[in-house]
Amino acid sequence: MKKVLIDCDPGIDDALALALAAGSHDSLDVVGVTTVGGNVDLPLTTANALALREFLDLGDVPVTPGSAGALLRHTVRAADVHGVTGLGDVVLPAPLRSPSEGHAVDFIVDTLRAAPGEITLVAVGPLTNVALAVRREPRVVEWARDLVIMGGSYTRGNHNPAAEFNMLADPEAAAIVFDAGWTVKQLGLDVTLSAVVTMDVLDRMRPLGRLAELLVPASQSYKAVTAEGGPAIHDACAVAYVLDPSLFTCVPAVVNVETTGTYTRGMTVTDFGVGDRRANALVATSLDVKRFWDLAMGAYERLAVRLG
Amino acid sequence: MKKVLIDCDPGIDDALALALAAGSHDSLDVVGVTTVGGNVDLPLTTANALALREFLDLGDVPVTPGSAGALLRHTVRAADVHGVTGLGDVVLPAPLRSPSEGHAVDFIVDTLRAAPGEITLVAVGPLTNVALAVRREPRVVEWARDLVIMGGSYTRGNHNPAAEFNMLADPEAAAIVFDAGWTVKQLGLDVTLSAVVTMDVLDRMRPLGRLAELLVPASQSYKAVTAEGGPAIHDACAVAYVLDPSLFTCVPAVVNVETTGTYTRGMTVTDFGVGDRRANALVATSLDVKRFWDLAMGAYERLAVRLG
Amino acid sequence: MKKVLIDCDPGIDDALALALAAGSHDSLDVVGVTTVGGNVDLPLTTANALALREFLDLGDVPVTPGSAGALLRHTVRAADVHGVTGLGDVVLPAPLRSPSEGHAVDFIVDTLRAAPGEITLVAVGPLTNVALAVRREPRVVEWARDLVIMGGSYTRGNHNPAAEFNMLADPEAAAIVFDAGWTVKQLGLDVTLSAVVTMDVLDRMRPLGRLAELLVPASQSYKAVTAEGGPAIHDACAVAYVLDPSLFTCVPAVVNVETTGTYTRGMTVTDFGVGDRRANALVATSLDVKRFWDLAMGAYERLAVRLG
Amino acid sequence: MKKVLIDCDPGIDDALALALAAGSHDSLDVVGVTTVGGNVDLPLTTANALALREFLDLGDVPVTPGSAGALLRHTVRAADVHGVTGLGDVVLPAPLRSPSEGHAVDFIVDTLRAAPGEITLVAVGPLTNVALAVRREPRVVEWARDLVIMGGSYTRGNHNPAAEFNMLADPEAAAIVFDAGWTVKQLGLDVTLSAVVTMDVLDRMRPLGRLAELLVPASQSYKAVTAEGGPAIHDACAVAYVLDPSLFTCVPAVVNVETTGTYTRGMTVTDFGVGDRRANALVATSLDVKRFWDLAMGAYERLAVRLG
Repeated sequence: MKKVLIDCDPGIDDALALALAAGSHDSLDVVGVTTVGGNVDLPLTTANALALREFLDLGDVPVTPGSAGALLRHTVRAADVHGVTGLGDVVLPAPLRSPSEGHAVDFIVDTLRAAPGEITLVAVGPLTNVALAVRREPRVVEWARDLVIMGGSYTRGNHNPAAEFNMLADPEAAAIVFDAGWTVKQLGLDVTLSAVVTMDVLDRMRPLGRLAELLVPASQSYKAVTAEGGPAIHDACAVAYVLDPSLFTCVPAVVNVETTGTYTRGMTVTDFGVGDRRANALVATSLDVKRFWDLAMGAYERLAVRLG
Repeated sequence: MKKVLIDCDPGIDDALALALAAGSHDSLDVVGVTTVGGNVDLPLTTANALALREFLDLGDVPVTPGSAGALLRHTVRAADVHGVTGLGDVVLPAPLRSPSEGHAVDFIVDTLRAAPGEITLVAVGPLTNVALAVRREPRVVEWARDLVIMGGSYTRGNHNPAAEFNMLADPEAAAIVFDAGWTVKQLGLDVTLSAVVTMDVLDRMRPLGRLAELLVPASQSYKAVTAEGGPAIHDACAVAYVLDPSLFTCVPAVVNVETTGTYTRGMTVTDFGVGDRRANALVATSLDVKRFWDLAMGAYERLAVRLG
Repeated sequence: MKKVLIDCDPGIDDALALALAAGSHDSLDVVGVTTVGGNVDLPLTTANALALREFLDLGDVPVTPGSAGALLRHTVRAADVHGVTGLGDVVLPAPLRSPSEGHAVDFIVDTLRAAPGEITLVAVGPLTNVALAVRREPRVVEWARDLVIMGGSYTRGNHNPAAEFNMLADPEAAAIVFDAGWTVKQLGLDVTLSAVVTMDVLDRMRPLGRLAELLVPASQSYKAVTAEGGPAIHDACAVAYVLDPSLFTCVPAVVNVETTGTYTRGMTVTDFGVGDRRANALVATSLDVKRFWDLAMGAYERLAVRLG
Repeated sequence: MKKVLIDCDPGIDDALALALAAGSHDSLDVVGVTTVGGNVDLPLTTANALALREFLDLGDVPVTPGSAGALLRHTVRAADVHGVTGLGDVVLPAPLRSPSEGHAVDFIVDTLRAAPGEITLVAVGPLTNVALAVRREPRVVEWARDLVIMGGSYTRGNHNPAAEFNMLADPEAAAIVFDAGWTVKQLGLDVTLSAVVTMDVLDRMRPLGRLAELLVPASQSYKAVTAEGGPAIHDACAVAYVLDPSLFTCVPAVVNVETTGTYTRGMTVTDFGVGDRRANALVATSLDVKRFWDLAMGAYERLAVRLG
């Protein structure tokens, strides 16, 4: 049973990542969900996380809101990709329960401190909360069992030619996180763009009852469309990595996050020629797409049975 | 009775600032001291703050350690100015009591939350703790009665031609603090370089009994020597401002902190041509030196009587 | 007899600098005037230089146009200061003669090559032409007797809080020029802001006949107004320096031009703590204002006699 | 008959590019060769160009030296890739003739001016000369029939993870060239890394008599080795493009050259989402490798016959 704390900004692909976690409850224990402003504003990402907790039957997992904006001044949003609510055309029942008291940064620090070496931090939004946790309490780096992120790329960006959205949305936070001393497990666009909801996949989602009411319109209204013709559910890759790292080929690298470039702010500059430097990241370079979907659809099907 | 929370990195001039606060206990209530890595490393700034609490008879004011280093990667120290211990040739008795549990950032947030509108935050080191507090809990900006800092300059730097030490030591933190929404009361080098311990001042310090054991060697071993031939006790200006703002001429300005320059990182770029923009700072442009020393020596003398 | 080649962007203060040179023809030999886009666009700066050549009776000094814009992409103009023509309310007779064939950069290179060690290059606009000359033929640095510029500041800017106009208008060119190997004689805002056309000065200009038709409306319509209440004729300081360096106190410094700052592009970052580095600039730190005006008015009066 | 002016920094792959041009003399008229400091220092690149002119029987094509270093301060060299002489293990007879008088920048300007619309500028080194020509005489952009460069990449660099060597060696020059108004034909690493001298290719080079004395040791000592196991002769792609653009798939793009990044200086940030902006580059995205080698070996074989 792997314990995970998921920091996210739902966001359509965040929703599919949470559904993947929810469907894997025999092997994954979600000890908390924290939210961050990202794809849409913090009130929306928090509201979406709350709605998803109930819709996905995540039980009493605490949902704790965190940072509204980036460490430094700018704010980047992606409502063009995720719709104004952040969940595209998906409409979920309004949540009955409120978020937890307190702040995501404290929740992350306290939760990791309470179980050193046990909990994997999965961050699929801008890294603001994680960076603040690292600076507020540097020992989270030791306490975390692992840090798995969706973000960046070693080739090209999505929000602009150089930068992936999560990194661009808070480049200084990303720089802090990559410099913090751990080995970041990085699922970037280079692999997540392969995790595409194809027509075939969509056909497998349709019969999933109530869950299909989330999965299908989410996929159909999600504007992260790839060359293959369907949307890439980036964030689900990070949860999939925790469930089965063997889905990915990963290569050690020295990753620096550009913070001063005119055209390259937020770019993860990836040097695979590590030499005798410490690799601060293990960068995914390929995804076994078939096995990914077997894993994901298996989880979705189990969850669908549960949800009815 | 003004309440202040002092965030500092003692540091010789921090010590003289704390002494000024201690000698003003009829008008100033120090509700807490937090420490940050700056002039020297955090363990030393914390140890010095603890030793000063007891030497200066600050009672049970909590001393809470905070951030060891800057938000982003670099670390700048000033042991060449403050000596390896941070207090030059001063030797204080080892403190008997320990620092408070918890972290400076939490202390700042919780203390300001508990008394909205009452407490002035006085920050005389790198702004790392303050920036983290702002990002951890943006409402501190409303809760603080005021923010008074020693840092920056609108003309030239001290650590290099463009940047003052406290700003250079954490430019991103400074940028966060100046952008946070309050009107920063900024005591920069432009005025603090006038707060010089001249031979005359030193002669007034010598008869101060036990307190002279701090003030005199501190002044004599402090390498922040100005053209006037004595050291400038920068940080004391911030406390003096709280005690009597009329000592300073202050001018509204838009201040931006440079974070991307090759030669100008940490520079506070100060635009007095505010126009219809919001002034995010009230920048001190002159100091009434005579009245400053009257205030400071008065406080030191009162404290000296108390300390014996 | 000192030989000078004047690179300029007239510009009101350029006009007064050229008048100062013209009135000093017993001690100054102007071997050429080159123009650059700066205060206004190149066609205007060239037209103004041509009109001034005839109005000031500069004889057959060649006027050669050069670079229209900065090395890199941006263009900054100062028509708000110099008026749309570049000469404020001054109206000069249309020039009868055309500019020389060829390009300022070639003219600079060829002229300096032909008389190594003899000619002082006086640059009072953006340094684009000079930088291109240096890169096109690095030996100009040896061939020039001296390089005297109006530009930069070691305290504050004029076009924005950090940068002086000439430097901001082409920061990369300025960086090239300061790095080229010579010792730049730099007359920056720190001194040129003292060269103010006060009411007294204006009264001395009024009786100067035809020349007054240039000097008076130029001064009156020039928007480079200082705290002292009159305009500062920055560029004339560079010519004055050639005529009598003893008017200025100059201090060796290492000057770096910022090219990457967000708020500080074009700032001349001046380090007077040269240590064992090579000083790449001799920076003027004070001007003997009375002697400056004695020199300038003497020249203007001699010229006025000649012009009638 | 296409006329080309080749600006280069030989450099092993420059040598193979010149050989390709020499072997294509029925369809290509080399009107000049200019040199720039790049792979090795300018005296070596010029000496190599002179030696190659004679060895390759390029006749009386003028060889004109140009810029020794980058526009701004840094210098980057690649002797680790090209050997200390710039030609690896190749030893050519010492050239009998000298370089032309004058400077590459003037040669480029004058040559293009003399035949507007006729000459394609092929630049396979750092773009210093081309940028200076553009700034010295902006009309070269109109006069050039075309500008074909080897440089940059839209995915990853070679000299570091973000930047290709020619761009990194003078980022400001590259920025000037891409911004100059023409549509740059860009052959970047994305395609040139396919132009690999495989074992098969090497076997076809061995029988080429005297020419083999250049081609074989050049290929064998060239350290630009790719994953495919042989070196990529980047620069030859630019000449090949002139000979037959249909070898390449090219896509319009907006290319910005990063000049301020900490980790990304010299990166060509390529946006294929041109929208309604002007595409300033036509970027090669694939190479027909077989046809490339057919073209190149055909030229080499014709040249070998001529050289004996």
